[in-house]
Amino acid sequence: MEKYPLTSTSSPLGDTSLTYQSLNKKYINGQNTAATTGYDEMIDIPTSRGGEASERSVDYEEAMEYSISYGGMQDSTEIPGIGQYDDFHTIDWQRDIAHDRMRHRYLVKKKQDSIWNLVQGIHDAWSGWLCVLLVGLCTGVVAGVIDIGASWMTDLKFGICLEAFWLNQEQCCWSSDETSLDSRNCSHWSTWAEVLGSTSQGAGAYLVSYLFYIIFALLFAALSACLVRMFAPYACGSGIPEIKTILSGFIIRGYLGKWTLIIKSVGLILSVSSGLSLGKEGPMVHIACCIGNILSYLFPKYGRNEAKKREILSASAAAGVSVAFGAPIGGVLFSLEEVSYYFPLKTLWRSFFCALIAAFILSSINPFGNEHSVLFYVEYNKPWIFTELILFIGLGIIGGLIGTLFIKANLYWCRYRKLSKLGQYPVTEVLVVTVITAILSYPNKYTRMSTSQLIYLLFSQCGISNTDDLCDYNRNFTNVNSAIEIAEAGDGVWQAIILLIMALVLKLAMTVFTFGIKVPCGLFIPSLCLGAIVGRIWGIAIEQLALAYPKSWMFTGECSTGDDCITPGLYAMVGAAAVLGGVTRMTISLVVIMFELTGGVRYIVPLMAASMASKWVADALGKQGIYDAHIALNGYPFLDSKDEFQHTSLAADVMQPKRNEMLSVITQDSMTVDDIETLLKETEHNGYPVVVSRESQYLVGFVLRRDLNLSISNAKRMVEGICGQSLVLFTSGSPPQSLGPPALKLKKILDMAPITITDQTPMETVVDMFRKLGLRQTLVTHNGRLLGVITKKDVLRHIKQMDNEDPNSVLFN
Amino acid sequence: MEKYPLTSTSSPLGDTSLTYQSLNKKYINGQNTAATTGYDEMIDIPTSRGGEASERSVDYEEAMEYSISYGGMQDSTEIPGIGQYDDFHTIDWQRDIAHDRMRHRYLVKKKQDSIWNLVQGIHDAWSGWLCVLLVGLCTGVVAGVIDIGASWMTDLKFGICLEAFWLNQEQCCWSSDETSLDSRNCSHWSTWAEVLGSTSQGAGAYLVSYLFYIIFALLFAALSACLVRMFAPYACGSGIPEIKTILSGFIIRGYLGKWTLIIKSVGLILSVSSGLSLGKEGPMVHIACCIGNILSYLFPKYGRNEAKKREILSASAAAGVSVAFGAPIGGVLFSLEEVSYYFPLKTLWRSFFCALIAAFILSSINPFGNEHSVLFYVEYNKPWIFTELILFIGLGIIGGLIGTLFIKANLYWCRYRKLSKLGQYPVTEVLVVTVITAILSYPNKYTRMSTSQLIYLLFSQCGISNTDDLCDYNRNFTNVNSAIEIAEAGDGVWQAIILLIMALVLKLAMTVFTFGIKVPCGLFIPSLCLGAIVGRIWGIAIEQLALAYPKSWMFTGECSTGDDCITPGLYAMVGAAAVLGGVTRMTISLVVIMFELTGGVRYIVPLMAASMASKWVADALGKQGIYDAHIALNGYPFLDSKDEFQHTSLAADVMQPKRNEMLSVITQDSMTVDDIETLLKETEHNGYPVVVSRESQYLVGFVLRRDLNLSISNAKRMVEGICGQSLVLFTSGSPPQSLGPPALKLKKILDMAPITITDQTPMETVVDMFRKLGLRQTLVTHNGRLLGVITKKDVLRHIKQMDNEDPNSVLFN
Repeated sequence: MEKYPLTSTSSPLGDTSLTYQSLNKKYINGQNTAATTGYDEMIDIPTSRGGEASERSVDYEEAMEYSISYGGMQDSTEIPGIGQYDDFHTIDWQRDIAHDRMRHRYLVKKKQDSIWNLVQGIHDAWSGWLCVLLVGLCTGVVAGVIDIGASWMTDLKFGICLEAFWLNQEQCCWSSDETSLDSRNCSHWSTWAEVLGSTSQGAGAYLVSYLFYIIFALLFAALSACLVRMFAPYACGSGIPEIKTILSGFIIRGYLGKWTLIIKSVGLILSVSSGLSLGKEGPMVHIACCIGNILSYLFPKYGRNEAKKREILSASAAAGVSVAFGAPIGGVLFSLEEVSYYFPLKTLWRSFFCALIAAFILSSINPFGNEHSVLFYVEYNKPWIFTELILFIGLGIIGGLIGTLFIKANLYWCRYRKLSKLGQYPVTEVLVVTVITAILSYPNKYTRMSTSQLIYLLFSQCGISNTDDLCDYNRNFTNVNSAIEIAEAGDGVWQAIILLIMALVLKLAMTVFTFGIKVPCGLFIPSLCLGAIVGRIWGIAIEQLALAYPKSWMFTGECSTGDDCITPGLYAMVGAAAVLGGVTRMTISLVVIMFELTGGVRYIVPLMAASMASKWVADALGKQGIYDAHIALNGYPFLDSKDEFQHTSLAADVMQPKRNEMLSVITQDSMTVDDIETLLKETEHNGYPVVVSRESQYLVGFVLRRDLNLSISNAKRMVEGICGQSLVLFTSGSPPQSLGPPALKLKKILDMAPITITDQTPMETVVDMFRKLGLRQTLVTHNGRLLGVITKKDVLRHIKQMDNEDPNSVLFN
Repeated sequence: MEKYPLTSTSSPLGDTSLTYQSLNKKYINGQNTAATTGYDEMIDIPTSRGGEASERSVDYEEAMEYSISYGGMQDSTEIPGIGQYDDFHTIDWQRDIAHDRMRHRYLVKKKQDSIWNLVQGIHDAWSGWLCVLLVGLCTGVVAGVIDIGASWMTDLKFGICLEAFWLNQEQCCWSSDETSLDSRNCSHWSTWAEVLGSTSQGAGAYLVSYLFYIIFALLFAALSACLVRMFAPYACGSGIPEIKTILSGFIIRGYLGKWTLIIKSVGLILSVSSGLSLGKEGPMVHIACCIGNILSYLFPKYGRNEAKKREILSASAAAGVSVAFGAPIGGVLFSLEEVSYYFPLKTLWRSFFCALIAAFILSSINPFGNEHSVLFYVEYNKPWIFTELILFIGLGIIGGLIGTLFIKANLYWCRYRKLSKLGQYPVTEVLVVTVITAILSYPNKYTRMSTSQLIYLLFSQCGISNTDDLCDYNRNFTNVNSAIEIAEAGDGVWQAIILLIMALVLKLAMTVFTFGIKVPCGLFIPSLCLGAIVGRIWGIAIEQLALAYPKSWMFTGECSTGDDCITPGLYAMVGAAAVLGGVTRMTISLVVIMFELTGGVRYIVPLMAASMASKWVADALGKQGIYDAHIALNGYPFLDSKDEFQHTSLAADVMQPKRNEMLSVITQDSMTVDDIETLLKETEHNGYPVVVSRESQYLVGFVLRRDLNLSISNAKRMVEGICGQSLVLFTSGSPPQSLGPPALKLKKILDMAPITITDQTPMETVVDMFRKLGLRQTLVTHNGRLLGVITKKDVLRHIKQMDNEDPNSVLFN
C-alpha cells in the first residue's frame, strides 16, 4: 500500500518557504477561479520535471505568478466566466478567508521590496477602514436626500409652497416665522384647494383636497411600482430577508447592484410619499448594503472576495439602521443580532465607525429639523413607578399577539399572492392598495398625517403647548414649570380614542396587504405606529383608572398627591417596542434602538420588560419572525444560526447518496480524461471526492467541478498529447504505466484538506460545523473510507423534513 | 476487508428511537463522568447477548437510566472524583453542549408523562432567566455594599462623623444641610485633628491628619493583603485575565468560589479605601462571576455543565461592568468583546437582562447619591467644533503612548516579581507600596482626594459653582444662564497644572507597581484618571491657544465671538477614554461605557476618534493589551479569538508525535487489558485514538484516558472473569477468537465521531476549528490513516514558537 509521504520539514520552524509553497498548492486552487494567468502553468506536463525538488521550485514560481497576476487582477473582470461563484450558489467561507490570508501574507512579504509595494501594503491595511468610511459618508448623504425628498413629496399631497415650490410645509412656514407643526394656516403655504381659487372652507374645498390627495398618492405609487418593475425588480420589498441570506453566504447577482440602488432610492421616496402603510427603514438597510457592495469594488481585497465583502456589508447594514433611526449603537447591534452571520470582532468596531459616520453626516444635513439628533425625542416629567412594570408586561403580551397576528396574516396573503394569478399583476396590485389606503386614510386625521408624525404625537407628553385632542383633559395649566395634575379625560380624548382605534384597524389591515407588494417598503415604522396606538390607548385607560382609584396598591400613593403619575406617552413608546419586537423578534437591538430613538435613558427597564414579554408570547405562538418567515417562503438556503437543531439524526442519515445509489468519485490515478468528462456530463454535483481506488474508497481529497472543467478544456487546447485516453493523475509521483498518451497531472487543483466527519457524527455537530466554519459541503467517512457527501442543501432539506415541512421548498443550491 | 455496517434506517424520518439510542452510545460517554449509576451497566459482559437487536434495547434502557440518574444527580456531588474535568484542564465544548441538548430532549420527551415532569420541564426552560435574574439581584446588592463601604472607609482616613460614625462625610453633612463636596467645614464632621482636640489650623493639625491618613491606609492595606493571603489567594488582582481564560474553556477550581467572593469583596473595600492607585471595576467583574458561578449550582443545567455555565458567567461579567460604571449596554458589549469566548445570541439578550437588573438594583440603593444614574455626569454648554477632531486624535495618540508605556513597565515589574525573591513577600510588598503611595499622595490635593472625585473634577466644566483652582480664570460670572466667556488662565490654573503634572507622574508610577500586588485591584479608574489629567492639561493649553489666536482656521471663528469655545473638561473625558483604550485595547465597549458613564450622547464622535487613534498607536507599539499580556505572563492556555494566525504551517508540522516517535494508539480488537494498562501507565495523554489495526492505522474512534481507567477498574471489580489477559473490544461483533478469558467490550465509551483533519490542512483552518468548535484535540489523518493528534496545547505552543517566543511558557494542559 501507498506509504505516507512525510513532509520533509524536520522542525516546524525549519524551512518556511517549503510550507509556504505546499500551502500554495491548495490556494492555487482557490485562486484559479479569480485569475487567469496562472492556468497555463497549472497543467503539469510530464516532460523534463521528474523529481520532487524541481517541481517544488516551479510551484513556488507559480505562487509568485499568482500574486503578480493578483496585482493586475483589476483588468480581468471582463473575461466571461471568471466570477468566483455562480449565481444562486453558496460560498465557501473557509476557502475565501484562506485566500485572503494568503494574499495578505504575500503583501507583507513584498513590503520590503520597494516603496511602491510598501504603499500598496499600507493601502491594503487601511482599505477596510477607508471603505467603511466611504460607505458611511455615502449612506449619510443618500439618507439625507431620501429624507428631504420624502418629506417634500409627502407635503406635496396637501399643498405647495407658492414662493419656493422646493420647500416642504415646515420649511415654507419657517421663512414666514409662523412655525407650528400641525396648524395649516401659515401664509406662504397653500393647499391645493387654495391654489385652485376655492377659498371657502366648506365641503367643496375638502373634496378638492381629498381628490388631490388620492391623485398624488396614486401617481407616486404608480411611478414607484413602474420604476421597480421596469428597471430593477430586486428593488421591491424591504430587502432584509434577502440581505440576511446574502450575508449568510449566498450569491444573488444584481441584488446589491447600482440599478437596485438608484431605483430603490427613488422608489422609496415615491412609495413613502404615496401615503402607503410602509416605512423607509428596511429599504434603507438595503440601500446601504448596495452602497457597500458597489464601493467594495474599489478595494479588490473586498470586492473580489465574497467572504471579505460580507464584512463590508455587515457594516453597511449597521449604517443603514443608523441613518434610519439616528441610532449608531442600535444599528451595530441590529447588524450583529439580526442580519449578520459571520461577524468577527474586528468587524464590530469597523461597523460602529461606519454607522457613526453615517449618522453624523445625516445629522449634519439635519433633515429632522430639530436640535435633537433623535427622531422621536421624548421628555417625560415623571419617572415610572415600579408596579407599573406589570402593566408594561401586559402591553408586551398584547404586542406579541399583534405581532403574531400580523405575521400569520401577512404570510397567508403573500403565499396566496405567490400561488394565485395575483402575482402576475404587481403594478395593478400596488394601485389598488394605494387607492384603498388613500380613500380610507384621508378622513381620519390620525391616518392622514404621516406615520412618523403620528408616532411623535402619540409618544409626546401632554403639556401646555400640546393642543391635540389627545390632550383635551379637564385641567388648567397655570405655569409651564409646575407639575401637571392628573385630570379626567375630556370629550376630545374620547373622540381621539375612537379615531385611534379606527386607525389601528386600518393600519393593521393595510400593512398586512402592503408588506410584500412590489414597491420598496419596510415595516419598522408601521409596526411602531400600531404599537404606539395600542400603548397610548392602554396608557389613557390606566391613567383614568389611577384617577378613579388613586390609593390603590398599584399606584402606591404616587397618584394620591394629585400629580399626573401615569404618562400615556410612555405607554405608547413601550407599546411601540412591544409590537416591533413581536413582529421582528429583535431583542437587545430593539431596546437600544428605542432608547436611541427617543433619548429616554431612564426607560430602558420598561422597554426591556415589554419586549421580553412580547418576544416570549410571539415565540410561543409561532417560532419565526417576519424576516425568517419570508426567507422560508422564498426558499432561500439560510441556515439560521439562532435555531438549535433539535433532532437526533446522524450524518449517515443525511448524506448523499442514499442506499442503493452510487457515490460519484474520481480515483487518484486510474481514470482517463474521457472517464472524467463522462462523469461531469452525467452528474451535476459541484465537486467530486478523489479516492485512492474505487475498491478501497480511502479519501485523498476533493476537487471542484468548475476547476476540473476549466483545467481539462485548457489542457486539451494548450498541451500537446493530451487526449481522451490520457490518464488523469492526482498524485505527485509518475504514472503507474508509462505506455499510452502523456498523463494529465491535476494535483494542484486538488483540495488536500477537505473537512471530513465520520458517519456516526450527530447532525447537531454537523450543523454546528456548517454554521461556524461556513462550509459548502463535508465528506462523510467510516474507518477512513469515504461513504458520502453532505452539502448545505442536504442539511437544510433534512431540517425541513424533520420539522415536517416540505423539503422541496429549499429552492437554491 | 471489513465491510461498512450500514445503519438500518431506511428513511431519515423512519425510526427515530433507533437514532435516539445510537446517539446515546456517544453521550453515555459524556455522562459517565457526571453520574455513577450507569457504570455497572457500561461493561458489556459477553453472556447472553449476541445479536444487535437485543443490545440495542439494552442501550435504550441505559439511556433511560442515565436520564433518571440525571434527575437524581443533585445528590452525587459529594462522591470523590466525579467532577467532570480535572483542575487546570481544558473543556470539550462540543461534548458539553451535546450533553445538554441530550438532556433537553429527554426533558421535552418526558414532559407529557406527568405534571411533575411538566413542572420540571418548565423550570428547566426558565432556569436560565431565573439564574441571571438572581445573579443580577445579588450583584447589584453586593456592588451597593462595596460602594457604601468603600466610601465610608475612604472618608475614615480623614475624619469621622461624631454623631453617627457609620455615615461618610457627604451623608454626615447632609443631615446638617451644609452639603458641599470639597469644603471640610461642616459642623458634624470632625477631622482626626479636631477629634484629638487640636483645634488649631497650623502645622500640627496638618501633621496629625497626615499621620492618621498614613496609618489608616496602612491598616486597610495590611488587612486586605492578609485576608487575601490567608483565606483566598485567588482573590488578588483584577481577575479579568483569569476570567477570560476560564470563559475560553479552562478549569481553575476555586477561582470563582465562595471564599474568593467573600474575601474579594471585603478586600476590595479595604484596598480601595487604603488610597492605593487602584480601581474597583475589574474586581467587580470577578465578584460578579463568583456570584454567577455559585448561583449556577442552584440550576444543575448550568452548574453541572461547564460549557453551559459559561453562558451564565458571560452574563455575570456584563453585570459586573454594569454595576461598576452604571453602564448596562457597555457591560454587555464588554462581555462580548473582551471577556467572552462562546457567546451565542441568546446569551446576549440574557446578559443584557442580567446587566440591567444589576444596574437597576444598584441605582435603587443609590450609592452615587446624585439624581443621575451615571457616575461622572457631564453637561457642557458648547458642542465641539469639527476641526477639534484633529486635537482629539492627537490626544488619542498620547493616550496610546501612555497605555503602551504602562503595559511595558507593568509587565517588566511583574516578570521581575515573578522571578526574583520579591514574589515571596506579598504582604510586605503591599505595605511598602501603600506607605510610599500614602506619603507621596497626601501633600498634593489632587492625589489626596479619591480617584473618582478627581476624575469627576477633571471632567467638569468651569461654571459659577466650581471654585477649584482649575477654574481660576480671569473672568466675571454675571449670570448663571449667560454664556461663559473665554478668558485668560489665572495663577490658580497654572498652579493646578503643576500639581496635576506631579499627580500624573505619581499615579503612573504607582499604578505600575500597584497592578499585580496581592490585593484586589483593577485599573480602569487609574487609567481613566491618567487620561483625564493629560486631557485636562491638553485642553487648557488649547483653550489658551484659542484665546491667543481666536481667528485661526482651527477655531473657524467659533472663538472670535468671545464665548468659551473650548471645553477642557471634554478633553479630559476624551483623554480618559484614550488612555483606557491604550491600556485595555477595548473598542466599541469603551466608547459605549464612556458614553453611559458620562451621559454625553453628543460626544460619541470625539470619543470614537480618540479611542481609534489610541488603539492603533498602541497596537503598533505592542500587540497585546494588558489583560492578554498578563495571560501570557501566567502561561494560561488561552487561544485568542481576535488574533489571526499569520503563518503557513500545516497540520503535519504541528501534530504529535514528531518523526521518529511512535503514536500511542489502541487497536479495536487485539489489545488485552494488560496492554492497555501498560499504555496508560507509560503515557500521559488525555485520550487515545482507536484504530482498526496497528498496521493499517485506519481510524475508528477516540477514547478518553479517564473513561478507560474507570471502566477497566470497574470491570475488574464487578465483572467475573475479566483479567489481564482479557481482550478489550471496541467493536460491536463477537471477539475474533473465542478461546481464553471473556473479552471486555468497551464500545460505549468510544467516541465514534472524533473531529479529524488531513495532514495537509493549513494551521489557520485548524486554529479556526479549535476556536469556533471549542475542540480539545483533533486527529490528523492522511488517506484515511491516522498520523497523529493535535491538542490545544500543541496549537498554543506552535503559535508561541512561530512568534519567536518560548513555547514552554504555555504552562497548563
